[in-house]
Amino acid sequence: MSKILRVNMSNLTAKFEDVPDKYKFLGGRGLTSAITCDEVPPTCHPLGPNNKISFAPGIVTGSGAPTAGRLSVGCKSPLTGGIKEANAGGIAADKLARIGIKAIIVEGQPKEKGKFQVLKVTKDGAELMPAAAEWVGKGLYETYPKMFKKFGEKTGIISIGVTGEMLMAMSGICVNDPEGRPSRYAGRGGVGAVMGSKGLKAIVVDDTGGSSIPLANKEAFDSGRKKLTAALQQHDITKPGGTLNTYGTAALINVINEAGALPTRNFSEGRFEGAAKISGEMIKETCEKRGGVGETGHRGCTGCIIQCSNVYPKEDGTELVSCQEYESVWSFGADCGIDSLDVTGELIRLCNDYGLDTIEAGVTMGVAMEAGLAKFGDGKKAIELMHEIGKGTPLGHILGGGAALTADTFGVIRCPTVKRQSMPAYEPRPIKGIGVTYATSTMGADHTSGYMIAPEILGVSGKMDPASSGMEKAEASRNFQYATAFIDTSGHCLFIAFAILDIPSGMEGMVEECNGVLGTNWTVDDIGRIGGDIVKRERAFNEGAGFTKVDDRIPEFMKYEKLPPHNVVYDVADEVLDKVHNP
Amino acid sequence: MSKILRVNMSNLTAKFEDVPDKYKFLGGRGLTSAITCDEVPPTCHPLGPNNKISFAPGIVTGSGAPTAGRLSVGCKSPLTGGIKEANAGGIAADKLARIGIKAIIVEGQPKEKGKFQVLKVTKDGAELMPAAAEWVGKGLYETYPKMFKKFGEKTGIISIGVTGEMLMAMSGICVNDPEGRPSRYAGRGGVGAVMGSKGLKAIVVDDTGGSSIPLANKEAFDSGRKKLTAALQQHDITKPGGTLNTYGTAALINVINEAGALPTRNFSEGRFEGAAKISGEMIKETCEKRGGVGETGHRGCTGCIIQCSNVYPKEDGTELVSCQEYESVWSFGADCGIDSLDVTGELIRLCNDYGLDTIEAGVTMGVAMEAGLAKFGDGKKAIELMHEIGKGTPLGHILGGGAALTADTFGVIRCPTVKRQSMPAYEPRPIKGIGVTYATSTMGADHTSGYMIAPEILGVSGKMDPASSGMEKAEASRNFQYATAFIDTSGHCLFIAFAILDIPSGMEGMVEECNGVLGTNWTVDDIGRIGGDIVKRERAFNEGAGFTKVDDRIPEFMKYEKLPPHNVVYDVADEVLDKVHNP
Repeated sequence: MSKILRVNMSNLTAKFEDVPDKYKFLGGRGLTSAITCDEVPPTCHPLGPNNKISFAPGIVTGSGAPTAGRLSVGCKSPLTGGIKEANAGGIAADKLARIGIKAIIVEGQPKEKGKFQVLKVTKDGAELMPAAAEWVGKGLYETYPKMFKKFGEKTGIISIGVTGEMLMAMSGICVNDPEGRPSRYAGRGGVGAVMGSKGLKAIVVDDTGGSSIPLANKEAFDSGRKKLTAALQQHDITKPGGTLNTYGTAALINVINEAGALPTRNFSEGRFEGAAKISGEMIKETCEKRGGVGETGHRGCTGCIIQCSNVYPKEDGTELVSCQEYESVWSFGADCGIDSLDVTGELIRLCNDYGLDTIEAGVTMGVAMEAGLAKFGDGKKAIELMHEIGKGTPLGHILGGGAALTADTFGVIRCPTVKRQSMPAYEPRPIKGIGVTYATSTMGADHTSGYMIAPEILGVSGKMDPASSGMEKAEASRNFQYATAFIDTSGHCLFIAFAILDIPSGMEGMVEECNGVLGTNWTVDDIGRIGGDIVKRERAFNEGAGFTKVDDRIPEFMKYEKLPPHNVVYDVADEVLDKVHNP
Repeated sequence: MSKILRVNMSNLTAKFEDVPDKYKFLGGRGLTSAITCDEVPPTCHPLGPNNKISFAPGIVTGSGAPTAGRLSVGCKSPLTGGIKEANAGGIAADKLARIGIKAIIVEGQPKEKGKFQVLKVTKDGAELMPAAAEWVGKGLYETYPKMFKKFGEKTGIISIGVTGEMLMAMSGICVNDPEGRPSRYAGRGGVGAVMGSKGLKAIVVDDTGGSSIPLANKEAFDSGRKKLTAALQQHDITKPGGTLNTYGTAALINVINEAGALPTRNFSEGRFEGAAKISGEMIKETCEKRGGVGETGHRGCTGCIIQCSNVYPKEDGTELVSCQEYESVWSFGADCGIDSLDVTGELIRLCNDYGLDTIEAGVTMGVAMEAGLAKFGDGKKAIELMHEIGKGTPLGHILGGGAALTADTFGVIRCPTVKRQSMPAYEPRPIKGIGVTYATSTMGADHTSGYMIAPEILGVSGKMDPASSGMEKAEASRNFQYATAFIDTSGHCLFIAFAILDIPSGMEGMVEECNGVLGTNWTVDDIGRIGGDIVKRERAFNEGAGFTKVDDRIPEFMKYEKLPPHNVVYDVADEVLDKVHNP
């Protein structure tokens, strides 16, 4: 029987509780969002004593299902002021599931600031201990090895960096990859700051003696696993030697640039003249040319059969960073006018080291450049600014607060955020549907909450005209948002979406895996209902926090500034946006 | 016939328009709020091309009515994100009225940033001209004399300081006093940043050849003026030799401190051990002791018969600043733990010089001290931090963004703001009714939008128990908010409220003055209706900007942190707050 672990940071207790019936069929995002809705007052201060932060593996995590090692983190976001779920790969979620932990809820707040605890969880129990001085205030590339030395090299460590300790609203929560790197992030929405506000530096998961999660219906599970595995191995995007495995996610750089929708120099243009130099193709070429540790098709997460990660080498073949993926390469690359993978690699490495969301950090850098703090394209200065963040200087605190805070501080109007969260690497002006998702997601601007790029650009799950502003975009975004909430709850990586949207048996496989674990009899037709319930609950939280339809909007400047090369504004009517969640 | 002057900063035109019928019976706040509601999209970026900023003298301004020289400034606020009206004394409003200007509306935005224009208005017309280099980027104590040299010593100058040029959200708009000092401010809500975003450095008003505004009913006006004058000269607070004339507004320091409601060290205590040293009594004593230019009972605004201002001298008798008034002395004094009038005087002088709202600046300083940027009580460091603002360093930009931005940047939870605007000098925990006003004002936390201190502490307009949290506070706050909107529309200083609330003929006098100017037949019974219409319109704008009842709340920390010495939390029920505007 899995348990919920409740950790109180006011009195430093950690107690196991039975899983209430209402949470039995939930996991991942569905579970963390339910906990946030049930236990967090929507109007509380995100960094105050009344917020709570919860961690949950997905429904099938720990079962041996393919590409299903996601860890969801939920809380009220200090970045958006609304509900937040951010999820990470790496190895910790699988381990948590294998020792029977359905969720960890961290509540309360220590009286004294700046003191940190570490929570160790094993098959036999949980224990809080003061963080050693050498684990705090340092970069994670230094801290992780020290924690492995103390707790064992095979532990999964869920940790904040110095920026989370300093309560910065762009700080994420790190999980190590199978080789121990601090490289996989529940990045978005400032979850790291919330963990920091609790005085919790890290959760160390030792699954010694643990085992695969129990199956209520082994037959259903096995059938589902086979179907999903087959679909993933068959689809061009996810198969071995397919797009993601060969080039990583940065394969999208050239595609989206070609579409005129690669946000460039703080969302002032849609095409970057240096795109080819930061593309997935160039990553692969460089890895091959430089050799050494260089590797594409790298596995970053437990049980993943897609393996989209990479290890990017320096010129001498030693490791610069793992990994250079699309969003990160774009945010520090095109959006900052920087056309060097060595520079983006260093900036990503610093994000991993300081504990930052690469999307928010890169977009913030673009806003900072617009504010005159650096010239577009000046990688040296961008690296200096990143160090300001790590050092926690006043300027670092501004940037560490994210793009919206930076724009507010310097009076920058061109601020590409929704609900104060930075937009990812797809310009909504030429691709209207992804803008519908950005505007109406419960999470703030977030491509992963309803990936309209699939039909609008990639031709996955049918084709839609990216330039169309019609009501069909509302319906499609809604369907994507609901399906995504289900996938995020199942524990699978969102990248299974390509295969399951195009291959019906893959979709069935995902549902059957869940049935196998839970003993339910869900069908593919239940996905929308279950995902929809999660999204509706999240929206109710946001409404309680004061959100209205005014918050479901694309920034004003995109409505009057034409984006080259297509010279289009964002012209999806408010009525379309409002229809997404009021069908 | 008075006119509206419409200034377009995109194409640098200034054109006169007839006053539409709907604006005929409005002035001051009623007029600027109507213009904002009619012409500004509530969701626009406050510093973008779609915001507009308007300036309007009150209904009776320029008529010779007593203490009626207020200038209202209206726009969408970059501080609160809602509607804003801030009003100032000084001499400019009277001059505008005397040359027949009902309102100035400034719209559009220059393409090039950092270039500023000056608008000169006379009886004969209006003209935009590039601001001389020596008027920009300098302190206002340096700039005003240079502008007087160019435009004449008797002009009224409405100007932003460097912080408005730099678009800082705590920047106000300055008006000179009768002796030419840059000392009277439309301070709140970042109106200076909006003027700056328009590229407009100053409006110079030369009323040569102007005359008193026409009267539709001279008899009514004269009767009203006499009644109001008599009431002001009779009431203990406003009469010659009365409280305000003798000690200035800082007479309140000891009173509010005694009540345990003087916010101290960033709203962590309600009583300041150094209160006596920064009191109105001490200001008077120091002025007398040091001699020289020292003066209380100083007249800061055209036609004022209360004369609450002062000129505070340095030890050698030369001028430090005019003036040290309650809010400013408190914000830099008690709220920063500073017990020296020489230090508060210097900080206020810097606010005047840099173009800042003293309430927002002082409260921000308190939050900065809480964040560890200075120790409470460290006046030297506070002055250094103020210079950071003036210089526009990154730290200066944080502080210049106000208390809420500073708190967000450094993760400070104890942030005493409502709608992101700093609370003034009355703690809502022991004085519940002023908290009802703070929470529900259309303006953000603002004592002047419904001064519940009158009945709760001063015994003006009856007496209410400050500790009571009952529904009667909702009704009283509503009545105060409505009556205030009327006074702000009439053009009178809010300080007439003491006399007109206690002396019925004074209230009649104010209304008769308005009838005399407008030819209306309003009675005292119309005040609530007229003021209420203004407030309701402002609330509709805020609703359009995305405000909900969640925004009508006191900060969460005040609900769980007990304030010494009375050890009380803010316990007015949400239902009471919601009742204010939904009776």
